[in-house]
Amino acid sequence: MTRRQLHLNAFLMNTGHHEASWRLPESDPYASVDLAHYVRLARIAERGTFDSLFLADGPQLWSSVGQRPAGALEPITLLTALATATEHIGLIATASTSYNSPYNLARKFATLDHISGGRAGWNIVTTAGAEAARNFGLDAEPAHAERYARAAEFLDVALKLWDSWEDDTIVADKAAGVWGDDAKIHPPRHRGRYFSVEGALNVPRSPQGYPLLVQAGSSEDGKRFAARYAEAVFTAQQTVEDARAFYTDLKSRTVAAGRDADHIKVLPGIVPVIGSTEAEARAHERVLEEHIVHTHGVNHLERLLHLDPGTLELDGPLPADLPPESAIEGAKSRYTLIVELARRERLTVRQLIGRLGGGRGHLTFAGTPEQVADTIQLWFESGAADGFNIMPALLPSGLEAFVDHVVPILRARGLLRTEYGSPRRTLRERYGLPRPANQHVIAPALV
Amino acid sequence: MTRRQLHLNAFLMNTGHHEASWRLPESDPYASVDLAHYVRLARIAERGTFDSLFLADGPQLWSSVGQRPAGALEPITLLTALATATEHIGLIATASTSYNSPYNLARKFATLDHISGGRAGWNIVTTAGAEAARNFGLDAEPAHAERYARAAEFLDVALKLWDSWEDDTIVADKAAGVWGDDAKIHPPRHRGRYFSVEGALNVPRSPQGYPLLVQAGSSEDGKRFAARYAEAVFTAQQTVEDARAFYTDLKSRTVAAGRDADHIKVLPGIVPVIGSTEAEARAHERVLEEHIVHTHGVNHLERLLHLDPGTLELDGPLPADLPPESAIEGAKSRYTLIVELARRERLTVRQLIGRLGGGRGHLTFAGTPEQVADTIQLWFESGAADGFNIMPALLPSGLEAFVDHVVPILRARGLLRTEYGSPRRTLRERYGLPRPANQHVIAPALV
Repeated sequence: MTRRQLHLNAFLMNTGHHEASWRLPESDPYASVDLAHYVRLARIAERGTFDSLFLADGPQLWSSVGQRPAGALEPITLLTALATATEHIGLIATASTSYNSPYNLARKFATLDHISGGRAGWNIVTTAGAEAARNFGLDAEPAHAERYARAAEFLDVALKLWDSWEDDTIVADKAAGVWGDDAKIHPPRHRGRYFSVEGALNVPRSPQGYPLLVQAGSSEDGKRFAARYAEAVFTAQQTVEDARAFYTDLKSRTVAAGRDADHIKVLPGIVPVIGSTEAEARAHERVLEEHIVHTHGVNHLERLLHLDPGTLELDGPLPADLPPESAIEGAKSRYTLIVELARRERLTVRQLIGRLGGGRGHLTFAGTPEQVADTIQLWFESGAADGFNIMPALLPSGLEAFVDHVVPILRARGLLRTEYGSPRRTLRERYGLPRPANQHVIAPALV
Repeated sequence: MTRRQLHLNAFLMNTGHHEASWRLPESDPYASVDLAHYVRLARIAERGTFDSLFLADGPQLWSSVGQRPAGALEPITLLTALATATEHIGLIATASTSYNSPYNLARKFATLDHISGGRAGWNIVTTAGAEAARNFGLDAEPAHAERYARAAEFLDVALKLWDSWEDDTIVADKAAGVWGDDAKIHPPRHRGRYFSVEGALNVPRSPQGYPLLVQAGSSEDGKRFAARYAEAVFTAQQTVEDARAFYTDLKSRTVAAGRDADHIKVLPGIVPVIGSTEAEARAHERVLEEHIVHTHGVNHLERLLHLDPGTLELDGPLPADLPPESAIEGAKSRYTLIVELARRERLTVRQLIGRLGGGRGHLTFAGTPEQVADTIQLWFESGAADGFNIMPALLPSGLEAFVDHVVPILRARGLLRTEYGSPRRTLRERYGLPRPANQHVIAPALV
């Protein structure tokens, strides 16, 4: 019997996940708009037989451009270019349900799925923050619960659109002059609280039916949403115990929602900092930390914690009177994770910035390839993960180090495929998930 | 002195511009979702040293799938894939100002411009029809004038977004930890009738500053809009006299709007049906006509003319009591062109369908390569065109015939480049247009 297989996703971000990564000598400060940089990263991940790669996103200029690289190419567009530069790897784009129309977004993902031969995935986000809201005609951020209610209706409409063509709609009868079967077109005729969408999509159903549905919010609303819709979940977890609790909770919520526990894959994020010895790995980590500009870090942390500028003192602890998660309308679960990390390890603001610099709340792990592989295997085999979201501190070198040194160990242990094999597979097949049936078609076994 | 140069655009559409093209033996009825088909077309156009290629679009399933191939990949996404398969040719995507948000759309075009190295163009449309409106929460089509008012504000916001980063915002000072100059970021802070957009775009300014602005509406509102914003205009003209009148009018409107007459390029559409003799060309045309399903054609024509189903009789003339253009809220100028064509040439509905089958109102011309080249040269040299929008009846073979047989004649006559040359040029450079200055930067000569 084959061993249960790890799923690996490469979370690509500019020059790396460490906030000071762009300052290192090897980094290209123009990487964010350089297609060649992303092609190189995608090919490294494909060499490592990763299941997928992933781009985060938000429709706003998040930070001051003085502080760090800001701005990024739009993910669906960039992944389309990467689809032509790769053959096997899945391509997961973040897109917001709060600031898109279902018709346009459903069509773009269907297009990416066609162009990539069934490798598209959608990381569904509701987009926290007033900055984004103000770019789309709103004065303030919609409330957290409101964003999730809209997201649920958005998904329902998108699924109706993706199913608005049956798979075998095109009959291509040239002699009779009949191209398609109109009886197999199902306009959504949706009229809801947030959306009214009348007509069928203008793209035939795509190889996967629709993109792999991915989600990353770990708040109460986020977990409820994930249990209902998500096929893969990215999550930030600092300890194996927390990860195990999250994993168990999410699987049972998924079962409670009437779905198979195996049909949702949980991938915690890990920022591996790899050295040939533990001392070398720690030295790499120190070099990154030394490049952090602490005034920028304080500013960044104040935004993450919804504090007024100037609240935090660099060498003091976090304030004791921080509001509870329930008072936060932004990224709720990340807020709690950061506050708990600081309190559990009694970190000063400076120390907390150092810890977050590498992973913004994700597990940062400095060690040898064996130690990184051991951690991955431990989490994977103790009910804490179905795989990992790999977030290299430095790109491309951190991804290269992972693929060249950690991947061979995982393969030798029988935890990771050694090649993609043929025929080519869809992203959903890589994750071991079934192709979704069209909601308008009764399964043959049930007829 | 070099002769004035023709500009050529390849208008790509599925299996061709003739409505029956998909029924011919050579045609692939699945072409609309096949990236390889479009890559092949783009490379043929690039072999013909075309300035650009172009994809039309509308966010709705236009016709019954029974009648003809319906649905298409989303243009910006598809052109991104084509950007990676070509080196020189411009890439013009249609997108609607009525059914997009400025922030999202400006970002997508900036992304395409970065990925293609400055080859992006935007065919700006306001999108006629109630079908599209009903896919975006509206019950009915917005009025023609309303759509154009929104389009003008959309353009103003998009231009503010594309100029929200000065070209030299990124300073990349690693030693000081300063990535960009915050003084060179200019948030739009736009509050208008249709849009409120507060923040700067989250993509650095792209190679061209912003995409080439293309427009194709020839109504009164359309021409006013073009004179103010467009750098290239696609138009349907049936006679050289009409084309000359349109050309002269548009150039003088552009000058009246305070712009240079050379900074708007006028490209009428032409559907060339090419044969080695005139008789062979006519035979090709007949084969296409014979494949038209006339009941579908009647249905299509009734929609173009905003008539109730069943109004038209196949072997009769158009009704005498058609409403005037002013009563039409859809594609106004196309309506008038079709009605005038039918009346001028006293065509029956059947004959009109035959004439429209090839070009939906664009000039269809069957002849030898010399005759096609003569027509192009005549229009080009008599003040009717700066170039042509080439709309092959059949794809890929019609584009191949044009590139293999008409392009060499145009080159021999000194009207068309023989190679793209180096260094690579942006789309705007191909069309002989200046790179737009950033509205926040005072030109050095004026300081």
